[in-house]
Amino acid sequence: MTGTMLAVLKPAPEPGCTVTRVPIPGLGPRDVLVRVKAASICGTDLHIVSWDKWAQGRIRPPLVFGHEFCGEVEQVGAAVTQTEVGAFVSVEGHIADGTCYQCRTGNAHICENVSIVGVDRPGCFAEYVAIPETNVYPMDPSISIEVAAIQDPFGNAVHTTLSGEITGLSVAVVGSGPIGCCAVAVARAAGARSVFATDIRPYRLALAKRMGADRVIDTTKEDAVAVVKAETDGKGVDVVLEMSGHPDGVRQAFKMLRSGGRASLLGIPSQPVTIDLAEDIVFKGATVLGINGRRMWQTWYQGQALLRSGKVDLRPLITHTLPLAEIDKGMDLLRAGEAAKIILYP
Amino acid sequence: MTGTMLAVLKPAPEPGCTVTRVPIPGLGPRDVLVRVKAASICGTDLHIVSWDKWAQGRIRPPLVFGHEFCGEVEQVGAAVTQTEVGAFVSVEGHIADGTCYQCRTGNAHICENVSIVGVDRPGCFAEYVAIPETNVYPMDPSISIEVAAIQDPFGNAVHTTLSGEITGLSVAVVGSGPIGCCAVAVARAAGARSVFATDIRPYRLALAKRMGADRVIDTTKEDAVAVVKAETDGKGVDVVLEMSGHPDGVRQAFKMLRSGGRASLLGIPSQPVTIDLAEDIVFKGATVLGINGRRMWQTWYQGQALLRSGKVDLRPLITHTLPLAEIDKGMDLLRAGEAAKIILYP
Amino acid sequence: MTGTMLAVLKPAPEPGCTVTRVPIPGLGPRDVLVRVKAASICGTDLHIVSWDKWAQGRIRPPLVFGHEFCGEVEQVGAAVTQTEVGAFVSVEGHIADGTCYQCRTGNAHICENVSIVGVDRPGCFAEYVAIPETNVYPMDPSISIEVAAIQDPFGNAVHTTLSGEITGLSVAVVGSGPIGCCAVAVARAAGARSVFATDIRPYRLALAKRMGADRVIDTTKEDAVAVVKAETDGKGVDVVLEMSGHPDGVRQAFKMLRSGGRASLLGIPSQPVTIDLAEDIVFKGATVLGINGRRMWQTWYQGQALLRSGKVDLRPLITHTLPLAEIDKGMDLLRAGEAAKIILYP
Amino acid sequence: MTGTMLAVLKPAPEPGCTVTRVPIPGLGPRDVLVRVKAASICGTDLHIVSWDKWAQGRIRPPLVFGHEFCGEVEQVGAAVTQTEVGAFVSVEGHIADGTCYQCRTGNAHICENVSIVGVDRPGCFAEYVAIPETNVYPMDPSISIEVAAIQDPFGNAVHTTLSGEITGLSVAVVGSGPIGCCAVAVARAAGARSVFATDIRPYRLALAKRMGADRVIDTTKEDAVAVVKAETDGKGVDVVLEMSGHPDGVRQAFKMLRSGGRASLLGIPSQPVTIDLAEDIVFKGATVLGINGRRMWQTWYQGQALLRSGKVDLRPLITHTLPLAEIDKGMDLLRAGEAAKIILYP
Repeated sequence: MTGTMLAVLKPAPEPGCTVTRVPIPGLGPRDVLVRVKAASICGTDLHIVSWDKWAQGRIRPPLVFGHEFCGEVEQVGAAVTQTEVGAFVSVEGHIADGTCYQCRTGNAHICENVSIVGVDRPGCFAEYVAIPETNVYPMDPSISIEVAAIQDPFGNAVHTTLSGEITGLSVAVVGSGPIGCCAVAVARAAGARSVFATDIRPYRLALAKRMGADRVIDTTKEDAVAVVKAETDGKGVDVVLEMSGHPDGVRQAFKMLRSGGRASLLGIPSQPVTIDLAEDIVFKGATVLGINGRRMWQTWYQGQALLRSGKVDLRPLITHTLPLAEIDKGMDLLRAGEAAKIILYP
Repeated sequence: MTGTMLAVLKPAPEPGCTVTRVPIPGLGPRDVLVRVKAASICGTDLHIVSWDKWAQGRIRPPLVFGHEFCGEVEQVGAAVTQTEVGAFVSVEGHIADGTCYQCRTGNAHICENVSIVGVDRPGCFAEYVAIPETNVYPMDPSISIEVAAIQDPFGNAVHTTLSGEITGLSVAVVGSGPIGCCAVAVARAAGARSVFATDIRPYRLALAKRMGADRVIDTTKEDAVAVVKAETDGKGVDVVLEMSGHPDGVRQAFKMLRSGGRASLLGIPSQPVTIDLAEDIVFKGATVLGINGRRMWQTWYQGQALLRSGKVDLRPLITHTLPLAEIDKGMDLLRAGEAAKIILYP
Repeated sequence: MTGTMLAVLKPAPEPGCTVTRVPIPGLGPRDVLVRVKAASICGTDLHIVSWDKWAQGRIRPPLVFGHEFCGEVEQVGAAVTQTEVGAFVSVEGHIADGTCYQCRTGNAHICENVSIVGVDRPGCFAEYVAIPETNVYPMDPSISIEVAAIQDPFGNAVHTTLSGEITGLSVAVVGSGPIGCCAVAVARAAGARSVFATDIRPYRLALAKRMGADRVIDTTKEDAVAVVKAETDGKGVDVVLEMSGHPDGVRQAFKMLRSGGRASLLGIPSQPVTIDLAEDIVFKGATVLGINGRRMWQTWYQGQALLRSGKVDLRPLITHTLPLAEIDKGMDLLRAGEAAKIILYP
Repeated sequence: MTGTMLAVLKPAPEPGCTVTRVPIPGLGPRDVLVRVKAASICGTDLHIVSWDKWAQGRIRPPLVFGHEFCGEVEQVGAAVTQTEVGAFVSVEGHIADGTCYQCRTGNAHICENVSIVGVDRPGCFAEYVAIPETNVYPMDPSISIEVAAIQDPFGNAVHTTLSGEITGLSVAVVGSGPIGCCAVAVARAAGARSVFATDIRPYRLALAKRMGADRVIDTTKEDAVAVVKAETDGKGVDVVLEMSGHPDGVRQAFKMLRSGGRASLLGIPSQPVTIDLAEDIVFKGATVLGINGRRMWQTWYQGQALLRSGKVDLRPLITHTLPLAEIDKGMDLLRAGEAAKIILYP
C-alpha cells in the first residue's frame, strides 16, 4: 500500500507532538499491515510528549508513537501464513527477536533484544501500523474495539495478578491507575477473598471500587498499611500488586504484605528506592516478582478467556473517546487525572 | 464427662447398623470433646453399612462411624492450650501422627500413620466426639451448622480444584456427586473460563448446573468426550477433575484432557483401571495428580475464605435434614441417588 | 546444492531398508543444509526397518529415516539470519509449527502439528539434511561429534530427570536403555541421594552402573519393588523415571514410588496398561508427569551446561561406530541387545 | 536432672560474657534434655557478646546463649513418645508454635511466634539444653559431632540454594562466610554449571575455593559484577545467593543477576538498602526470595541426604576446636576473620 496517512508524530527531540500526514509504512515479507480501529493513550505516551529524561534517553525522533491498539488486517506480506486480510486483531507491542535465550526458554516478554512499538519503532497513533505476523492476536468479534484496544495494559494486569496464587487470598493493589483497576477486576474474577486498592486520587479510587475493590484507601487521608493490617487481623495481605512505581507505594506495598506473601512489582520507580530488606523481604520469607510486559502468549490466552467468559468487564475503564486528531485533549485529561483509558479513533 | 450418649453403631462384622446408646468418649490431655451439632452422611458410610469388601478389610466393629460434622467444644483436656469451651468448630477427620516424613514436610494429608475418624476410631454419628485439639478448625459464626458439617467433602473439592492453575481455564468435573458439585462451585469462584460437569443421574446434573456448571453432560445420553472436544475447538479441556472413581469416568477424563493439561484424581476406583498411557499421558505431556484428603491446613484456609467472602455457597447441596435416629432413611435416600448432602442432627 | 548423496532409504511399505543414492535435499529460505558428521540409531529406527504396526500407521515411504545426528552447516537459505556456514550443530528433530497454542505458551515440545525428522520428513541417515534454522542448536567445539550426535536421547533424559526436584532425593530409573543410562548420569550430576536402575539385560545394567547407578537391579533375578523398598526404609523412592514402556516396568515404577513422590513417564507402552490407580496414584498423592521430547530450548541449555561443565560424560554410551553404509550391522547389534548408542559416519 | 552445669552466660545488658555455672534446665513433659557434645559459634553470638543495637533490642539477660549444636539425649519428658534416651541429635533452634497460620500451612520457618534457642530462651553454650521433642533431628552415626553441630548454618545454605532450580545453572554466592561456603558446596553437589563466590577476605575466598567454587572474586581487588558478566557472555548468572547482608553485596547481587534469574536473600542488612528496583527487579522479571531459617523439615531431610551420600563434605569448614571455657579465644578468632566454624566442647 502506498500513499500517506494521518499520524501523531514526535517530530524532534523536544516537548510536544504534531498531528500530521506521513507515508503509510512498508511491509516486510512476514509483516501484516493493520488498519487501526481504536488506539489508547498510555502514561508512556505522556512521557514522550513531555520529553522527560526517560524519553530523551530512549526515543529517536521523528517517531509516530502510541502502542495500545486494535484494528483490522488490511494487507499481509508474502511470507505470512496464519493471518488473513480482514482479521480483527489486537497487538503485542513487544517485538521479541525469537532467538535469544529468553525467547528460547519461554520468556519472550523479557527478550534481550526487544523492540517496542511506538517507542523503538513506528507506533499506533496513525491510520496504519506494520507489525510482524507473530505479534498480532486475534480478537473475538464479541469484544468491542475499545476494549480490544487496551489489551496491553489489561495484559500487564493479568500477568501481574496471575503470577502466583490468588484464589481465596487477600490482595492489595497499590496504585489504582488503569492497570491497577484492571488488576482489581482480575483478582476479583480469580476468587480473591478481598481486594484492597490504594491511590491518591478519588477519581481513580471510585473506578477501583467500580471494578470490584472491596475497600479503597485514599493514601492522602488514611494510612494504607494500618488500614490493611487492621482488616487482616494484623497480618497483612497475602498478595500485593505494586502498580504505582512511587517510592512510597513500594514501601507501603512491602509493609502491608504478610510473612510468606507474594509481592508482584509492575510499577517502575523513576529512581532507586530504599527498602527495609531485612524486615520486609528476608525475615518475612517474601516472594518478590518483577513483572515486565505480558507473557507471550499465556497472558493473552488468559486475558481473552476472562473477557469472553464475562468474568472481567473492562468497559467502565473506557472513560473518554476522541478522534485521533484531538489527542492533545486526551493528554490534558490524563494529566488532570480525571480519566482512565482514553480511546482515539484514527 | 461421663454417662451415655445416642450413637449409630456398627455392632458386628456384618451388614447394617444400630441406633443405640454408648458411653460418652473419654478425653486425653490434648483432646477436646465436641458436642455434635450436625453430621453428614458420606458414601464411605454407605460402604460401612452395606459391609462391602473394603469395609470388611478396614473396619473393626463395634464402631461408631461417621466423619463429616461440626459442633461446639464442650470440654477440653488438661494440656489443651488453643481451643476454648464453646468454640464452634468443624473437624479434620484425618488424624495425622505429626512425626512421619510426610507430616514433617508439609504433607500431613498423606501421613504414613493416619487414623481416620469414623473409620479407624470412633466417629461423629453420635452426640459427642473426642478429637485431638490439633484437628479442630474454628468456623466463623456466619456459617450455618449444615454447611459447617460438610467441610470434609468441600475440602476434598477445594484441594482437588486448586491443586493447579484454574483461572481462565476450561474445566471438566467428571462425576457430579456432592464433591463434584462442590468442585464446580470452586472452579467457578476461581474464574474458570467454562465448567463442564458429567454424571449418569439427572438429579446430580441438575445440582451441578445450580452450582455453576456451564454445561452438564448426561453420559448415558451423550458422549462426554465428544461434547467436551466439540466445545473446546477439538482440543479438550485444560483441567480435568476426576471424581467418579469409575473406570469409564477415568478413561473419559483422560480422553477429554488437552495436551499439556492437568488431571487431578480424587475418585477411588475399586479395582485397577486400564489406561492408554501412551496417548493419554506420555504424548500429551499431561500432569496427573493423585489427591487425597485435604491439605492441612492450607485447604481449610482456602475453603473458609471462599465461604466467608461469599464466593461459594454450599447451601443448595444440603438437600435433606433428619434426626440422627433416622439415619436409615438418609441411607435409603442416598442409595436412591436422589440426594446430595443429608444432614443428621443428634 | 545439487547432485546426489548417500542415504539409507525405506523404499517401500515393507520390512527392510536400502543404502542408496538420493538427491541432496533442496533448501527453503529459512532452512539450513547440514552436512551430517555423525548419526545414531534409535529404537524408532528399528521399528521403521522391521515395519511394525506403529511404522505402518505413521511412515510414508519412500523415506530417508534417522533423526539423531550432528553436523556442520554447509549452506543457508536466503532468509536465515542467525546461523553461519561452518557452524557445528546438533538438531532438535521435532519441527514445531510455532503458531499453535502449545508453541505459543512455551510448550513447543508438544506442538499440535509437529513434524518429526526421519519420521514425517527426510531424516539424517544421509550425507545431508535440510532443517529449519530454528531447529539447529550450536554445539561447543569441546564436544565430540559422537556425543553431539546423541543430543536427542540425552535431551529426553534431561527433560525427564529435571521435570521436578531431584537434589538430595532417591531416584529409580526403570529401564536402562540408552536414555535410562543418560538419566542415571543426569540424576547423579544433579545430586540425587541414590540412584537405582533396573533392566532385564546384564549388558545394560553394567552400563547403568558405569554411568553412576548406586544399585542396579536385574528384574529377571530380583524383585525390583522389594529391593527398592528394602533400601528405602520400606517407603519407596522419591522419584521414578519410567523409561521401559513395558507394562511390568510401568507397574513396578508406580509400586516403588513413595507417597507424595514423582513419577515421570517417558517410556511408551505399545498398548493400554492396567494400573492400580487407587493405591498407586490417588492415595499416594503422587505426581505423574507425561514426558515427550525435549523442552525447546530449556532442555538443550540444561544438557549443554551439564556436558560442558563436565558434570555428565556420555562417552561410555558410545559403544560402537560404523560407516553409514553398514547400518544393517548396527541394527543387528541393537537387536541383539549388546549395544547402547551406535554411531554411523556418512 | 538437678545440679549445676558449665555455661556461657550473658549476665547483664552490657558487653561481654562469663563462663560460669548455672542450674541444669528443668524439663517440660514434651521436652528432651540434650547433653551438648559440640557447639559452634555463629555471628549472632558475636553480636550478643559485643552487645550491639540488635542485641540490646532483643536479648533479655541473664541468658545462656549459643544455638548451633548437637548432642545426646540424656533424659525425656513424661509425654515424649518418639525420642529415646541416647539418641544422637542435632537441633532446629527455631521453636515454632505449631498453631499459627504459617505453621499450619507448611511454613513453620516463619512462625509468627517463634522462640529462638540462645536468643529468646536458654541456648547451647552449656552442658545441657532442654528442647521440645519436636525440635530434635536424629543424626546418622556416620556424621561427626563437629559436622552435626553446624546443621543450623548448613541448613540455611541448603534452604537458600535449593529454593529454586540450580542444576545446570550458573550461580554466584555473594559473601563467603561459613553459610556462603556451605552454599558453594550445595550448589556444586546439585550440579550447578559454575559457581562464583565473592568476599573481601582472602581467607574466606580460599575456603570457598576449597568447597568447590569455580571462580572466587576478592571484591576489594576486582569488580565482581564485571567479572561475573565477563564470564557469562555479558548476561549475568542464573542464580544469586546473597549471604553478605552488606548493602554493597546486595547491590552487586542484583546487578550480576541475569534477566529472569533468581535472587535468594539470606543476608540481613543492618539498615535499609537502596535498590534500583526498576532495572534490577522489574525490567529483569527477576524472582527475589527472602530466606529465613530452615524449612521444617524439608531442609533437614535434604541436608542429611547430601551429607550421608557424600555429595557434600563440611569438614573443611571446621577450622578450630576449643573447650567451651575458652570461648573468648574463639570469639577473637572470628573477629579477626581467620576462622570459619569454631567448635566448642563443653
